[in-house]
Amino acid sequence: MAVPDFSGEDGYRLWQRYDVIDAALPTATLKVVGRTETHNIIRDEFRRAFANRVGQSSGTLLVQKITPELQARFNLQADITAQLGDEGFILKRHGNDILITAKTDIGLLYGSYHLLRLVFIQQPLDSLSVLQNPKIQRRLLNHWDDLDRHTERGYAGESIFDWHRLPLDKDQRYYDYARANASIGINGMVPINVNANALMLTPMYLQKVKALADIVRPYGIKMYLSIKFSSPQQLDGLDTSDPLDPQVQKWWKHKAAEIYQLIPDFGGFLVKANSEGQPGPGDYGRTHAEGANMLATALKPYGGVVFWRAFVYANDPAKERSLQAYDEFVPLDGKFMDNVIVQVKNGPIDFQPREPFSPLFGATPETPLAMELQITQEYLGFSTHLAYLGTLFEEAMDADTHVKGPGSAVAKVVDGSLYNHKLTGIAGVANTGMQRNWTGHIFAQSNWYAFGRLAWDHTLSAKQIANEWIKQTLTVQPEAVRQVEAIMMPSREYVVEYMTPLGLHHLMDSGHHYGPGPWVDNLGRADWNPVYYHRADKQGIGLDRTASGTDAVSQYAPYWQQKFANPETTPKELLLWFHHLPWDYQLANGETLWNELVSYYYRGVDGVSDMQQRWQQVKPYIDANQFRQVEMALSIQQQEAQWWRDASVLYFQTISERPIPTGLPKPAGSLKEFQSRKFPYAPGQG
Amino acid sequence: MAVPDFSGEDGYRLWQRYDVIDAALPTATLKVVGRTETHNIIRDEFRRAFANRVGQSSGTLLVQKITPELQARFNLQADITAQLGDEGFILKRHGNDILITAKTDIGLLYGSYHLLRLVFIQQPLDSLSVLQNPKIQRRLLNHWDDLDRHTERGYAGESIFDWHRLPLDKDQRYYDYARANASIGINGMVPINVNANALMLTPMYLQKVKALADIVRPYGIKMYLSIKFSSPQQLDGLDTSDPLDPQVQKWWKHKAAEIYQLIPDFGGFLVKANSEGQPGPGDYGRTHAEGANMLATALKPYGGVVFWRAFVYANDPAKERSLQAYDEFVPLDGKFMDNVIVQVKNGPIDFQPREPFSPLFGATPETPLAMELQITQEYLGFSTHLAYLGTLFEEAMDADTHVKGPGSAVAKVVDGSLYNHKLTGIAGVANTGMQRNWTGHIFAQSNWYAFGRLAWDHTLSAKQIANEWIKQTLTVQPEAVRQVEAIMMPSREYVVEYMTPLGLHHLMDSGHHYGPGPWVDNLGRADWNPVYYHRADKQGIGLDRTASGTDAVSQYAPYWQQKFANPETTPKELLLWFHHLPWDYQLANGETLWNELVSYYYRGVDGVSDMQQRWQQVKPYIDANQFRQVEMALSIQQQEAQWWRDASVLYFQTISERPIPTGLPKPAGSLKEFQSRKFPYAPGQG
Repeated sequence: MAVPDFSGEDGYRLWQRYDVIDAALPTATLKVVGRTETHNIIRDEFRRAFANRVGQSSGTLLVQKITPELQARFNLQADITAQLGDEGFILKRHGNDILITAKTDIGLLYGSYHLLRLVFIQQPLDSLSVLQNPKIQRRLLNHWDDLDRHTERGYAGESIFDWHRLPLDKDQRYYDYARANASIGINGMVPINVNANALMLTPMYLQKVKALADIVRPYGIKMYLSIKFSSPQQLDGLDTSDPLDPQVQKWWKHKAAEIYQLIPDFGGFLVKANSEGQPGPGDYGRTHAEGANMLATALKPYGGVVFWRAFVYANDPAKERSLQAYDEFVPLDGKFMDNVIVQVKNGPIDFQPREPFSPLFGATPETPLAMELQITQEYLGFSTHLAYLGTLFEEAMDADTHVKGPGSAVAKVVDGSLYNHKLTGIAGVANTGMQRNWTGHIFAQSNWYAFGRLAWDHTLSAKQIANEWIKQTLTVQPEAVRQVEAIMMPSREYVVEYMTPLGLHHLMDSGHHYGPGPWVDNLGRADWNPVYYHRADKQGIGLDRTASGTDAVSQYAPYWQQKFANPETTPKELLLWFHHLPWDYQLANGETLWNELVSYYYRGVDGVSDMQQRWQQVKPYIDANQFRQVEMALSIQQQEAQWWRDASVLYFQTISERPIPTGLPKPAGSLKEFQSRKFPYAPGQG
Repeated sequence: MAVPDFSGEDGYRLWQRYDVIDAALPTATLKVVGRTETHNIIRDEFRRAFANRVGQSSGTLLVQKITPELQARFNLQADITAQLGDEGFILKRHGNDILITAKTDIGLLYGSYHLLRLVFIQQPLDSLSVLQNPKIQRRLLNHWDDLDRHTERGYAGESIFDWHRLPLDKDQRYYDYARANASIGINGMVPINVNANALMLTPMYLQKVKALADIVRPYGIKMYLSIKFSSPQQLDGLDTSDPLDPQVQKWWKHKAAEIYQLIPDFGGFLVKANSEGQPGPGDYGRTHAEGANMLATALKPYGGVVFWRAFVYANDPAKERSLQAYDEFVPLDGKFMDNVIVQVKNGPIDFQPREPFSPLFGATPETPLAMELQITQEYLGFSTHLAYLGTLFEEAMDADTHVKGPGSAVAKVVDGSLYNHKLTGIAGVANTGMQRNWTGHIFAQSNWYAFGRLAWDHTLSAKQIANEWIKQTLTVQPEAVRQVEAIMMPSREYVVEYMTPLGLHHLMDSGHHYGPGPWVDNLGRADWNPVYYHRADKQGIGLDRTASGTDAVSQYAPYWQQKFANPETTPKELLLWFHHLPWDYQLANGETLWNELVSYYYRGVDGVSDMQQRWQQVKPYIDANQFRQVEMALSIQQQEAQWWRDASVLYFQTISERPIPTGLPKPAGSLKEFQSRKFPYAPGQG
């Protein structure tokens, strides 16, 4: 056996591998006009990218804020430059010169990263003429990281934020984190779990937060904090945290003043209230709007905002879980202050491999809604399954709510265009950790990348983003790029197939969410149990959410109500989300539901084998270290996909009492053994 | 502000920075005779070290197991080669050729690493003639890492062992860990906390352990496991774990067979029993010997050994803690099987910045004793204080027990020479973690290095080891080496001075052991409280361990009994360890105890300032990334040293009611504020 050779790319540099990617660099002398920290970052970035590789210089690569002289020299029309927003940029070629211009330093930085991207994905720059503004205003990473560095639903090691050593230890990772985020347009961070800790607002911790904020500021990133609604009681012994209590209001005003003195550009608060045990205004009989507005009042003088999460399902356990967020928040529409934005998960349950879009999108014309996507793969195989989520994010963005007729995409709710909101936002639950490659899996980096790129411009396609990411991260060899695209594009669908095909959902084992647990039926709340969601019985399988069932379909626009009411017009991939159907129900392709369900489980596993084969084929074009990391992860994924398939099929078979369809091998292993597996130390537990 | 430039040495390569250290490489063609994995490792190591840097080839660098032909060709006398042990090696120059030879593959590997060390510390190879054998047989790292990757007393991030992803994910770190250890002669590892988890012995986890064992085997490293004494009950529902119960004995025999089938060269078990809540033979009225022998019987057929820890202080809380290990183990001398070794911490309490040697050393002629040293800095500033422990390890090794007259050093107990034991061992509690630089502090790497080097050869001096480490890790520039030595050599003494001068000990805050807590007096057991150890009162300070007190001095040889009985003949650095003395007690230098105590606290802090100044002076000769990491850590150390000094002095002042000596500034801060500080998320908690 040869000694493993790890001298190559360990993954730390993410998609910023400038020096190893073959690229035609502009033959131009860099000139960055300005002396702020952001200007220095721009200089440094080009130095990293082009060092020792610039050919004969024949022009200038000019990075400068827009002036009338520049407009004239680069032939920029006034109507073009007028479109430039605060974070936007223009790239313009003129003869041998290239201009990167913007109204702000941050715009220059974003323009610089965009030019670098074009170079490294090998776009010709001959007739370069680009104007871009982000379509969504606040583009945040939400870290579910705790003060002890445990990361809830983190599968890449412990938190990158070392609170113990802050503020004096300004670790290299913080800078590299900021660089990576800036390169894809992320402009906000919440370093701490929404299951919040009041200590974060103590003077000692705020000094640590300030140190981080100072590091990320020149990269255009604003600091936000998750807060504990009961902080006034916990930290200063107030009798109550009732949002209508004047002492409580005063406490938050003082706290806001304290924060803004340390961090003048502080972004605001993220709040999980009255959900899964977190305190909130409901503890005092107040509404979410009353709670949010109290905080918004405190932040208002400084321009801060409140992200108030709609992920609540506490108040009425008797009501089917998917109904609850809509029922709680739609009546509050119009009651929130204008610096409050309600943050809604893409689907009505909880980041399942596939969900329909949340009916809240489009249902609150007066209330801006931020979309919350999960980058970390809580339900998609942790950090050992290759699942490119660009396709999931695209599906979530492009879903057409039909609330104002066709063309009412969720993305238009989120970017504010559907109801003309100026406050817009999007949040991705981060997948970063102390693993050297940041995300535990080289391909999980693509999900961070895709989130950022879609947050900036949701009209980009998942395929285009995959192509960009591959070229910057893995290889530019055309056939290899094609093969890796063929791995990435269907990869999330494979996970759906071997975990929860045909609209099934929430079938994972308890607590840690690692591996299959469709049989689990003994948890404290009915709606924590997988059996609550699949409802398999002698007759059939699926959760009836039509009028004959929980009537969740009524929360959608009439167009979808009609579609979802009938299994024949329900999209096949959501069939069992909305319907309980007989095992022998005949599908459009002529197969019975049972046979089709089982064959999907097998298809998913076959998909993993296909990915493994394709990965072997690209070996000559991939760095040895990257290759080996992915190869090992795929071997784990293959094993776990089979586990999901065999455990699920064997379990459902005990209920359906039907044979494995002809042509498919029998599941391996015994259901009893699958059910006995315990993983007390699975990572990322809540 | 300039953008931080992190392009340099991040610390991951430890002391193996071959390509950046300026060195005169031998101009010879490498020839490694053999095709085992270990041979491949040797080839790879020389490739890394010499790649592209070999000059005109004029000879052969031959790596080959000893043969009569080699002996003749390289002029090796038979009486020399006869001295070669299984892990030993010979390096010999002959004309333009260099020979690395040994009886085993591992000997060749150790010889190769030694040659590389000589090259990179710039020793001339002209008349190379070296024969080395390790002085201690089993040289282990003990990791106090838990299955969830938390590391007890770990200050460098979570465990490097990712049990969740094992066995399929063979992370790069495992290989690099093995390389680093092999390069300093460490030949055993216990990957799991002595506060053990029975699950480690389940088939699922043993597969993971096997995967690790397979990785480290070619590097000469054997796998050992911490075991939970109650495993038979916990894992298989036996009624008891009584070591005299036949079912229990059978259970362990079967378990040993199961382990050796997977790991044929498995090293054995490490056991913490009947200490700090761990189960043990005492639960059934059995002795440590009965417990250890039961396990030793199970391991015996396979050549495995039991490391049985002497760190116990549970049985009689009324007895002063430092007495207990001796009192429990001395009566058992002669009762252990010959594959049991008792593992004793260097001092009688628990890894304090300074302790006298443990009186157990030398007190058990029939029982081999392994020494347990703590590499991780539980009581020496975590991973943010620069404290070179080579001097502490040397002090512990060189301490002369006088049990057989002068020259009865602890090292001679440990290497077996004092009582002619063949089974010998030494253990270091590791300081590794997922921080990129492995140990959280560049200089903490030197403690790992020093442990390995001293375990191999305890006659090496701490200064020589520091010199080696500096040249391989930081710089070979002579003046910079001198300055860094001047930082390292007194650094541990500075910590003693600003934390626990003059023999004080165990004054840290509770639980996490972070920061000062000399006032703590409310913990469950008397001997967990700092006030138990300093005994400060109106009259004076210190713990009387003479005949008028706890009589701990009686456990030492008569030579030391006499010395320790009298404060005037007690070494000054252990004064308050053995004596309770009046505040105005006059020391040999004419100072009062109070004034001297306070001035030591100030000296320690001044020492840190001195280290900071010296570090700035070597900046031109140190990699920028290494420099910055250490610079930040020193700023934290400066702050925390002051905190220790000010809190301790202010606290003791409330008892001594004496002024700060003339010429010293008043302590900053308020005692009340110091006492109110809480750190619920300090790292490494137990």
